Amino acid sequence: MSSNWGQNIELSIFGESHGQAIGIVIGNLPAGIKLDMEDIRKQMKRRAPGQNKMSTSRQETDAVHIVSGVIDDITTGAPLCVMINNHDQHSKDYSLLKECMRPGHSDYPAYMKYHGFNDVRGGGHFSGRLTAPLVFAGTIAKQILKQKGIIIGAHILSVKDVYDQHFGIDINEDDLRILLEDQYPTIDHDAFMKMQDVIEDARMNKNSVGGKIECVILNVPAGLGNPFFDSIESHMSSLLFSIPAVKSVHFGLGEDITELYGNQANDAYFYQGKQVKTKTNHNGGIIGGISNGMPIVFTVGIKPTPSIAMMQETINVKTKENTHIEINGRHDPCIVPRAVVVVESMAALAILDMMK
Amino acid sequence: MSSNWGQNIELSIFGESHGQAIGIVIGNLPAGIKLDMEDIRKQMKRRAPGQNKMSTSRQETDAVHIVSGVIDDITTGAPLCVMINNHDQHSKDYSLLKECMRPGHSDYPAYMKYHGFNDVRGGGHFSGRLTAPLVFAGTIAKQILKQKGIIIGAHILSVKDVYDQHFGIDINEDDLRILLEDQYPTIDHDAFMKMQDVIEDARMNKNSVGGKIECVILNVPAGLGNPFFDSIESHMSSLLFSIPAVKSVHFGLGEDITELYGNQANDAYFYQGKQVKTKTNHNGGIIGGISNGMPIVFTVGIKPTPSIAMMQETINVKTKENTHIEINGRHDPCIVPRAVVVVESMAALAILDMMK
Amino acid sequence: MSSNWGQNIELSIFGESHGQAIGIVIGNLPAGIKLDMEDIRKQMKRRAPGQNKMSTSRQETDAVHIVSGVIDDITTGAPLCVMINNHDQHSKDYSLLKECMRPGHSDYPAYMKYHGFNDVRGGGHFSGRLTAPLVFAGTIAKQILKQKGIIIGAHILSVKDVYDQHFGIDINEDDLRILLEDQYPTIDHDAFMKMQDVIEDARMNKNSVGGKIECVILNVPAGLGNPFFDSIESHMSSLLFSIPAVKSVHFGLGEDITELYGNQANDAYFYQGKQVKTKTNHNGGIIGGISNGMPIVFTVGIKPTPSIAMMQETINVKTKENTHIEINGRHDPCIVPRAVVVVESMAALAILDMMK
Amino acid sequence: MSSNWGQNIELSIFGESHGQAIGIVIGNLPAGIKLDMEDIRKQMKRRAPGQNKMSTSRQETDAVHIVSGVIDDITTGAPLCVMINNHDQHSKDYSLLKECMRPGHSDYPAYMKYHGFNDVRGGGHFSGRLTAPLVFAGTIAKQILKQKGIIIGAHILSVKDVYDQHFGIDINEDDLRILLEDQYPTIDHDAFMKMQDVIEDARMNKNSVGGKIECVILNVPAGLGNPFFDSIESHMSSLLFSIPAVKSVHFGLGEDITELYGNQANDAYFYQGKQVKTKTNHNGGIIGGISNGMPIVFTVGIKPTPSIAMMQETINVKTKENTHIEINGRHDPCIVPRAVVVVESMAALAILDMMK
Repeated sequence: MSSNWGQNIELSIFGESHGQAIGIVIGNLPAGIKLDMEDIRKQMKRRAPGQNKMSTSRQETDAVHIVSGVIDDITTGAPLCVMINNHDQHSKDYSLLKECMRPGHSDYPAYMKYHGFNDVRGGGHFSGRLTAPLVFAGTIAKQILKQKGIIIGAHILSVKDVYDQHFGIDINEDDLRILLEDQYPTIDHDAFMKMQDVIEDARMNKNSVGGKIECVILNVPAGLGNPFFDSIESHMSSLLFSIPAVKSVHFGLGEDITELYGNQANDAYFYQGKQVKTKTNHNGGIIGGISNGMPIVFTVGIKPTPSIAMMQETINVKTKENTHIEINGRHDPCIVPRAVVVVESMAALAILDMMK
Repeated sequence: MSSNWGQNIELSIFGESHGQAIGIVIGNLPAGIKLDMEDIRKQMKRRAPGQNKMSTSRQETDAVHIVSGVIDDITTGAPLCVMINNHDQHSKDYSLLKECMRPGHSDYPAYMKYHGFNDVRGGGHFSGRLTAPLVFAGTIAKQILKQKGIIIGAHILSVKDVYDQHFGIDINEDDLRILLEDQYPTIDHDAFMKMQDVIEDARMNKNSVGGKIECVILNVPAGLGNPFFDSIESHMSSLLFSIPAVKSVHFGLGEDITELYGNQANDAYFYQGKQVKTKTNHNGGIIGGISNGMPIVFTVGIKPTPSIAMMQETINVKTKENTHIEINGRHDPCIVPRAVVVVESMAALAILDMMK
Repeated sequence: MSSNWGQNIELSIFGESHGQAIGIVIGNLPAGIKLDMEDIRKQMKRRAPGQNKMSTSRQETDAVHIVSGVIDDITTGAPLCVMINNHDQHSKDYSLLKECMRPGHSDYPAYMKYHGFNDVRGGGHFSGRLTAPLVFAGTIAKQILKQKGIIIGAHILSVKDVYDQHFGIDINEDDLRILLEDQYPTIDHDAFMKMQDVIEDARMNKNSVGGKIECVILNVPAGLGNPFFDSIESHMSSLLFSIPAVKSVHFGLGEDITELYGNQANDAYFYQGKQVKTKTNHNGGIIGGISNGMPIVFTVGIKPTPSIAMMQETINVKTKENTHIEINGRHDPCIVPRAVVVVESMAALAILDMMK
Repeated sequence: MSSNWGQNIELSIFGESHGQAIGIVIGNLPAGIKLDMEDIRKQMKRRAPGQNKMSTSRQETDAVHIVSGVIDDITTGAPLCVMINNHDQHSKDYSLLKECMRPGHSDYPAYMKYHGFNDVRGGGHFSGRLTAPLVFAGTIAKQILKQKGIIIGAHILSVKDVYDQHFGIDINEDDLRILLEDQYPTIDHDAFMKMQDVIEDARMNKNSVGGKIECVILNVPAGLGNPFFDSIESHMSSLLFSIPAVKSVHFGLGEDITELYGNQANDAYFYQGKQVKTKTNHNGGIIGGISNGMPIVFTVGIKPTPSIAMMQETINVKTKENTHIEINGRHDPCIVPRAVVVVESMAALAILDMMK
């Protein structure tokens, strides 16, 4: 399935960056869920562009327009379709993009897959703008999970080579609440200052930078998930790798666990009162594909924004010649800050989908 | 789906480590494929235990017994069921494992999920032994892909902190053929010597180590894959994270791409004759979820074997008390060498499944 | 999946009868398909209400508004979202429908499933109006199939106890073309005259009637389909039973084949030149779940419209008392004529989905 | 999916009629279910051949051999694989079947689909023998459903033109229990006598007959199912049409409802105490794709056994000539009696799968 996803809840996204609208159909939501529209607007804003110099100057209000599935802000159980209209697209000439393949962009693979019929305006259906409806869906998922006590939060772990701290094993709901009030959540505030400098520096140089996002899911009960093909890692990674520009997914310590000895990597169980805990959480709350009751922790790596104003070498598929390209327009020198809420949303959708 | 996977080919695994047999049903294979049984035996042996001091001394011949779907070594198009009988399981007393949860193992999450009814003998259905039928299926997938010119190979990138070289951008079929003749493939042979020492050292200390495997898929034509939910990364990672002990998946440079600038991360296109190439392959042959014609490269991180002979702290879920556990028996101090062919197999299955 | 369907093409419907809009997202359509918009309008009109006294007087233009996936009437390969706005809904008081369950309608089962949160206005998401986007999708499927030589057509086989002839074994494309030019296609024109009388009679008596539709699919090559779970019958019936009010699905002679002897039921093969044919087509072109190259023929039975103006006994779920209900408003005394194109559409979608 | 089925429970069948074994993998069964092995043997026997003159004289014990997923007759939650070995296949010469296509059999469509590589011995994977593992799976489903109070039973509604009575609206568990003690369940015992005569008559004439089976599912709570693509009818029909030889599926009155007026077809609700009932059950307990709490009733039509000893016209695909064929061997002149338990099993699997 390419535009559809899910076993329990059902997602179907549509739209192009510079088309009329983007949107999503969410099927199998439970009936009777009161949507917190204020929270939805808040989360949409966390992802929306144009809020400061770190992001593209494109002004999209990203106002969501619910077409079906909701009456008086309460879900009816029927498929929820939401539309986000595209207002600010420039009606410029895109003919060059039909020929000159932007490096690091989907242009060339899409050209080959769709035989040149794909919408190239602003990246078309491949645009990161499609994550807006995913944030809408993910926010509803978070609201449903919150009723079950499950809380999700993420922070910017790194921008280029500037690193924030990792979540501690004792990360709790209160810490997350405070963290998520920050539009650019980092645990170490100084880290974010340095990150801003790196981003600003990249912009000045017509360049871009990437980074990492670390996410935690609190209070998932032990016993969720499956061995093998539908492990939590399998289920969640298929959504996380759906986020444009994500090139790595780690659970727990991820790659770093490969440099430990077994006795270090194994998280020792103990009873804290009647509750089972582990002394460390190197496995990120998942063993054998199944939750063990500890916080689920994972990290995604996001590559630098491929759209850079700097001159780049590339090909012209029409003339079949090597050429150069300069990508003008409004582009984020770093999408990591805006992607934080996208990662949280995907985590929420994955967990909700598994809790059938 | 937990025991089933696939959109085009269909996989269904079954069996327990110390039960009667393990196996797999493979549906939707094309009819008329002549199976190379000698190659199947060879690939099965790459994964099989008991071949040297680096792996468990359990002797499993892992002889495959094809039950259906094949006549005279040629596929009929009907579901192919293969069984691998379990011969060497010890009929020892497993009652302790019902109570004492081995750290780093699925014991506790499985206990919670299955309410104590799961088969705990040798890890039951969670055992790494279940990767044997996956290697069988993957080998068939490789044989089918080979007819389309697609070649897959992997090497041990690291064991603990000892690293092999990465695949170069010019890795080709001949290099892979030579590499894969080695039972423990590394590009730098000296690296493997050091890896052996690290593994032997771990064994001596009743401990274990993990590592990384890097895999390459040559000659996938540009245009395979999808944006979003069925990106190559999404499709492939769901299988890769199905391999027990895999905790991270990277495509291309993976996490390391997050520390580059955009102009470095973008792989510049150029025409080499009539063929489109990129000067670097930091994106691992996948952009926007779709292949760009360059080698698909990915890395998985495998945690240290959780079964270690060293005394460990844990809990007894029956007495509800903290306790200690020593895990006796035959265990690999490092499963990375045996996992190489498993990773290749999963890659083959993922690519074949997408080529509908 | 409830709102999603498909293995190859992907369907996701949304909307409510008296909400803002209804629509569908169609994923995995091939890129580069030139849509025949005139044909789409024509097919939509075949289903649309308000065209004569046999159908509801509700005036819905059912104008389709393509939101995504198409540029200059050519598919881009990205998900195609189409919206059909609801214009003519009456903003009357629906509170009675929240309490009094209309017999034969989804009201009571939906009340139980959605705990009373479902949209009851005009049947909400359960409305037959949702078949409009399915006709849109099916028309595109027909256009794609037509390029492969596959032609689909249906006729009204019966209204109540008035029967048209069955398709003959030699039904061909030319016959179908002529038949489908008729808004109410019957093979025997006199039959339709009698059908009209039966329908008009039902309307006069505040009652309704049902009937049957027979559909044929020409030129499906032998070898399409699967044994068991994805037989053509299985694949197609799941879509046909998605059409509201369909209560039976027959392939070939259907039930009538149960009254034949084996030597009558078996369709004898013979060579007509180099082409394989059968002398009869009692199995409707499908044997063992797979096409045999003969026309695929099936029949669906549609129950009488449940909305009737006549007084009916029912329950009030709020007062928990038995009561009576009179359903006013605009209702088709027979939906069979409008359902012909819906049945054709579902057949087209099922066949296209299997031709991956 | 061809060999796999299910959203909640997962089925994967394999095997060929005259191969080594047939079997099924059942995934996602709940852990801790105590299997009633005696009941399993009893249900398997209802389907097994060779029990009297009405069925094939092939002697298959159909003894089930559980390979995985069960310890001490209790499910572990891991995939349950069961094998049924083939003992009694004749090792005769099947080369004729590679060339001469048996009318009414899958031979020709399978030849076209699999390019002649399919196993033709005894129908290979297309054999009705594959329903044996489905009965095994269905019996487990019935046992799980029974714990929820849901009871399933079917009877022979007709053989050729000899009809039993239909289930009455007041059919209850006690009636079903008595009915199902009969190996050839009919409500009217005289009907079965006549049926036997018709079957015996067909056998004497080297011919065969078909018939219908009516099935009822008691105590499904109101609110199960979905509108549109995953209606109970859609979900169930995909399994029912997986049964070889089924050519029609009716819910409630099925086709007969098309000849009623709306006021007759609508089932009027009333309160019987606090319980909601309908005065008639013409819709078979399903409205809008969702259960209404009344018995779910459906009928399947089964064509006459295609294997008949009588001479038949057909083609030779090798010589490309018209020819004749006589099918010798052991064949049921009527498979309807043995199919009763298969239909019940499919109903059980469909309902269990929807009760996630």
